[in-house]
Amino acid sequence: MRRMAMLRSKRQFVVEWGHCDPAGIVFNPRFFEYFDWGTWSLFETALGVKPHDFAATYGIMGIPLVDAGAKFVGPARFGDTVELTSWVSEFRRSSFDVTHELHVHGALAVEGKETRVWAERDAADPMKIKARPIPPEVTARFTIAQ
Amino acid sequence: MRRMAMLRSKRQFVVEWGHCDPAGIVFNPRFFEYFDWGTWSLFETALGVKPHDFAATYGIMGIPLVDAGAKFVGPARFGDTVELTSWVSEFRRSSFDVTHELHVHGALAVEGKETRVWAERDAADPMKIKARPIPPEVTARFTIAQ
Amino acid sequence: MRRMAMLRSKRQFVVEWGHCDPAGIVFNPRFFEYFDWGTWSLFETALGVKPHDFAATYGIMGIPLVDAGAKFVGPARFGDTVELTSWVSEFRRSSFDVTHELHVHGALAVEGKETRVWAERDAADPMKIKARPIPPEVTARFTIAQ
Amino acid sequence: MRRMAMLRSKRQFVVEWGHCDPAGIVFNPRFFEYFDWGTWSLFETALGVKPHDFAATYGIMGIPLVDAGAKFVGPARFGDTVELTSWVSEFRRSSFDVTHELHVHGALAVEGKETRVWAERDAADPMKIKARPIPPEVTARFTIAQ
Repeated sequence: MRRMAMLRSKRQFVVEWGHCDPAGIVFNPRFFEYFDWGTWSLFETALGVKPHDFAATYGIMGIPLVDAGAKFVGPARFGDTVELTSWVSEFRRSSFDVTHELHVHGALAVEGKETRVWAERDAADPMKIKARPIPPEVTARFTIAQ
Repeated sequence: MRRMAMLRSKRQFVVEWGHCDPAGIVFNPRFFEYFDWGTWSLFETALGVKPHDFAATYGIMGIPLVDAGAKFVGPARFGDTVELTSWVSEFRRSSFDVTHELHVHGALAVEGKETRVWAERDAADPMKIKARPIPPEVTARFTIAQ
Repeated sequence: MRRMAMLRSKRQFVVEWGHCDPAGIVFNPRFFEYFDWGTWSLFETALGVKPHDFAATYGIMGIPLVDAGAKFVGPARFGDTVELTSWVSEFRRSSFDVTHELHVHGALAVEGKETRVWAERDAADPMKIKARPIPPEVTARFTIAQ
Repeated sequence: MRRMAMLRSKRQFVVEWGHCDPAGIVFNPRFFEYFDWGTWSLFETALGVKPHDFAATYGIMGIPLVDAGAKFVGPARFGDTVELTSWVSEFRRSSFDVTHELHVHGALAVEGKETRVWAERDAADPMKIKARPIPPEVTARFTIAQ
C-alpha cells in the first residue's frame, strides 16, 4: 500500500541586519514575510508555475490570506542561517492551511500557520472576492507517494 | 458597585502606498507592525512612560512576543483611514494578551492578538530571557473604573 | 509685488520600534518609506485629491521614482517624534524633484530628494511607461503667494 | 605588472510578493534594503568574518550610513530573478563608498551608492559616534590582483 505525504518546500536564507529590531532579534512581522516567501516557493515547487504566472494560469485573482498565526519558540538573530520548511497541512473545499517551520541551528525557532482561500474576483463587484473550489489537479500536486 | 473595564488605546492612521502589495491591499505582515504600534501606544497611555524609557523604568529587558495571530475579515486599501484599538484582554502571572481591532470605514477589517511576556535577561546567560511576575502596580494601570 | 513660495506639507509621527535596527536607530530604507509618505501627503494637500484617486483623476498611471537620495546627518531613535517637511523643489516639463527634511527635536536629522516622473502607460506596450508633460494646473497648485 | 581590481560580491535572489507595491514593481525602499544585504555580503566575502561578529572583530560599533542614493533605470517585478553586484568603489581615510548594481534579466535595473563610515562609539558620550581611520589590513582585503 502506498503511503502519501505532503510535499514540503525548503528554503535557506540568512537573517539580515534590517530584519532585526533594537533587541537584536528578528522583528516579528518579518516572520510573516518569511511565511509568504515560503508559500510562494511551495506553490512554485508543487505546480511548476512561476509565482507571477500563478493567478493567470489558474484563472483566479490569487490566494488571499484569511488567518495567520505564529508561535515564537526561540530567537533568530542577525546573521543566523534559517531553514524554512512549508507545506499544506490541510486542503478544504475552497481554503487551505500552510504550515511553516523555521529552524535556526537545527532547533525550531518559529512555527506558523496561514489559512488562505482559492479566490476569484466577484463578477458583479470587482472590489469583492469569492472563494472557489480548489481544482483536484491542484491539490494532487501537493501530495507525494512515499 | 464599580464595574471595571480594560483601558483601550486608539490610534488613527492612513494606509500608505508602501504598506500595500500588488493586489492593492495591505500586505499582511504590515498588520503585525500595526499591532506592535498599538501595543506601544497602549503601554505609553497606561503607564505614562515613553516607549524607549519603558524597559529601563521597570528594570526589564522588554515584553517579547511569544504568540501572534490575526483574522483578516475585510481589506484595507491604500489611502484608507484605519482606526486601531488595542487593549490587554488578559493578564496572567508573567504573560499577557493584547487584543487589536482594526476598523476601516467603521467596519471591522482585522482582529489580532499578541501574547507577550514580562521578561528580564537571565543573569547567568544574557542571551537568554526569563519571564518575571508582572508588578501589580503595572496591571492596575490598565484597568479603569466605569 | 507678490513673492511666490513652494507649498510645504508637514507631518509628525513617532519612530516605531519596528522602524529601528539592532543599533537602535531607524533602519535607512525606512527613511525612503517616510519620503514616500511625505510625497503623497504633499500631493493630497496641494491637489485636494485622495492618494488612491490621484492617478485616475489625472489620467496617468502614477508618479514613479527615477532617482532617490538621502543624507543622514543625525540619528532618529525609537520613540523620537519626527517632523517631516516635504515640498516640490523643482518642476520640469515631465519630471519634478521632491525635497524632504526630517527634523528630530528641532535638529535636521535627514535630508532627502526624490525625482519622479509624470507618467502614463505606453498605449503600444502596457508594460512600459511614458513621461508626459505635467499639466500647468497641477504645478500651479504647488505654489503659494506670500 | 599586476593590475588591481576591487573585489565584487554577487548575490542572486527573487523579488518577493511583499517587496512589491500596488503598481506591481519593487517598492523603492526595498532596494535600499537590498543594498544593505549587498554590503554585508561583500564584507563577509572580503573579510571572512560573519556579519554579526564583524563589529566586535574590529573593535568598532559598525559602519553607519551617511549617504545613500539610487537611480531606478528599469523595473523589477514580482518573481524576477535579481543579480545584485556590490563593491567598494572608493576608500577614503575613515569613510568609503559601496556601489551596487542590480540586474534583472541581464539588464541594469537599479544603480545605487552608499557612503559609510568606519565608526566607534565616542568614549565621552556613548550616544555619539566618531569616525576612525580604516585599518590598511581591511582595505587590502577588498582589492584583488588580476
